[in-house]
Amino acid sequence: LDKLTIIGTGLIGGSVGARLRLAPARPTITGFDRDPHALRDALALGVIDLAAATAAESVAGAEAVLVATPVDHIGSVFESIAGALAAGAVVTDTGSAKAGVVAAGEAVLGPRFVGGHPMAGSERHGVGAAEPDLFEDAWWILTPTERTAPDAYRTAAALVASVGAKPIAVEPTAHDSLIARLSHLPQLVSSAVVQVAAADEPQESLLGLAAGGFRDVTRIAASDPDLWVSIIRANAKAVLEALDGLGSSLGRLRSAIDEGQWDDLRGFLAGARDARLELFAKAVYTGAPVALTLLIPDRPGVLAEVTREAGELGVNIEDLQIFHSTEGGRGRLELVVAGREAGERLLGRLEALGYHVEMGLPDR
Amino acid sequence: LDKLTIIGTGLIGGSVGARLRLAPARPTITGFDRDPHALRDALALGVIDLAAATAAESVAGAEAVLVATPVDHIGSVFESIAGALAAGAVVTDTGSAKAGVVAAGEAVLGPRFVGGHPMAGSERHGVGAAEPDLFEDAWWILTPTERTAPDAYRTAAALVASVGAKPIAVEPTAHDSLIARLSHLPQLVSSAVVQVAAADEPQESLLGLAAGGFRDVTRIAASDPDLWVSIIRANAKAVLEALDGLGSSLGRLRSAIDEGQWDDLRGFLAGARDARLELFAKAVYTGAPVALTLLIPDRPGVLAEVTREAGELGVNIEDLQIFHSTEGGRGRLELVVAGREAGERLLGRLEALGYHVEMGLPDR
Repeated sequence: LDKLTIIGTGLIGGSVGARLRLAPARPTITGFDRDPHALRDALALGVIDLAAATAAESVAGAEAVLVATPVDHIGSVFESIAGALAAGAVVTDTGSAKAGVVAAGEAVLGPRFVGGHPMAGSERHGVGAAEPDLFEDAWWILTPTERTAPDAYRTAAALVASVGAKPIAVEPTAHDSLIARLSHLPQLVSSAVVQVAAADEPQESLLGLAAGGFRDVTRIAASDPDLWVSIIRANAKAVLEALDGLGSSLGRLRSAIDEGQWDDLRGFLAGARDARLELFAKAVYTGAPVALTLLIPDRPGVLAEVTREAGELGVNIEDLQIFHSTEGGRGRLELVVAGREAGERLLGRLEALGYHVEMGLPDR
Repeated sequence: LDKLTIIGTGLIGGSVGARLRLAPARPTITGFDRDPHALRDALALGVIDLAAATAAESVAGAEAVLVATPVDHIGSVFESIAGALAAGAVVTDTGSAKAGVVAAGEAVLGPRFVGGHPMAGSERHGVGAAEPDLFEDAWWILTPTERTAPDAYRTAAALVASVGAKPIAVEPTAHDSLIARLSHLPQLVSSAVVQVAAADEPQESLLGLAAGGFRDVTRIAASDPDLWVSIIRANAKAVLEALDGLGSSLGRLRSAIDEGQWDDLRGFLAGARDARLELFAKAVYTGAPVALTLLIPDRPGVLAEVTREAGELGVNIEDLQIFHSTEGGRGRLELVVAGREAGERLLGRLEALGYHVEMGLPDR
């Protein structure tokens, strides 16, 4: 990658630039931000090399474009840059909700677009908080669909890997439901618990008696309200479903307590404990890279299917390449994953889907 | 205080004994526990001086009696000891719900009883986990009523202070409502958020993508279900009220999102943020607060190690927060202590343990 454009030079965009600045083969980075102060700061900090006057101007000649604006501005950025992109330029984004962004991206930009969402962040904001190691070892979800061009996925995954993150493919709607439950619901609940604690409290100072559990549960309630309104708004449908799920769950708890069904309450708490303890004990695949090679019919749906299978297994695809047969019709897809165990699990899944797969060492 | 009885020689009772053992004017402590193993261990560890065969026997001649059994056994302990108490003996307890315990205590024991609840604890249980500094600088709520004898309160407050805690008086029903909202509701909500996240999840491994906010909110969901059933059960009425308050709060959120009332959502989140930021701003500092920030591996032992170092130095940690920057990687621990001298002493100890520590002004 020789020329990259970052639109939105805040915490995320700035951290990408800060990391690439340290890379041995550093791309030239052009930045744009609708806030001229943020753009000037990004230039002064050296996380971008050039500041463009408009979004359209910023993408001229770029091989890849990262849109890292607030999620509610992403669609309009796509509109602004669509006519100015170089042939073969790939566009990806960092929005926290994906179904809407991917629909807009594919409608405006076509197969060159692949959605993304880094699973890393900070309580702080703006390019001043940017850190080169923000994404180190973090997951970075990519959301390819049957429309996505394989080369677009490959470029996006390589960009993600180049800042230290692990790309993993998830279907856009599944992403939104997952993130609603893992991020947006906890945020709303944390705020609601604070509101309940603070409501009708004559002995205000007693709230300071709260012990560690309360502190943990309500820590994220101190987050930026404006940021969260735009995040929730972009994922409203999945958030409402998650809220309804929580409502049912709390309803079960309420009945158990009201009716003195203490075994039910115990079962609920024990189930949650077991799930919480297992949650972060899931296999993290590591090891020397192995390559899976499979013959594929030359149709676009294959990429989405294969990457989604990997995502469901928690296997991140470190590299991906499609070799088209000169005779046409069929091609060869090469995936690189971390470690033999991950490779064997994915191989099993793909063979069950009817693919012929071979495992070996990567070419590089 | 020359003669103290501790009934229930677990974590709380054992920690009281362990602390008093170090006191210059140490009282003679008689212990009783319905679990003979727990009682034998308490004697072996030296947190009690004498082991009694029954609860009634244990209180003979005692000036003060601390009932530190599980909350659902406290009432029957009162019945057992009522006839055996010396004239002028004071009784207090450590139950997590107070209205029921206080009513029982006053009915059975009269004005000599004052309820109590230490705002300290541990994830661990039993006398083996007892620590002399468990209550150091912690709040210890006492719940005197108009029936309580002033001398009973005075004795209980002196006992509390003698183990390093700060006594504070709260009305029993207000205590129960407060603790329902500050402790019991967060516990239930944390479990419910895990249940929602884990429900109907075909892509199981993707739950591991959860970022720091989810980890914070669900940390206490890993607590002991049996312990929590008895705690919730003893405070069922106030917990149901807190659950109803949360239901209304979440209902407001749901409507705002469903109807696209984004200003309402923003107002809700902003109110919660302000309340959360004010909540722990009540501390009384003995010096200007300084912050120590250290990078830590993401494992539970670190917190205990760091706080123990602070405790051994006599440095009171005014605030403490963990920021998880990336999944499964490293985190950042921020401690706020009172005064530069305390900060420098703790910094030296932590650096000697191999931590990289920076000292500065706290964020807030």
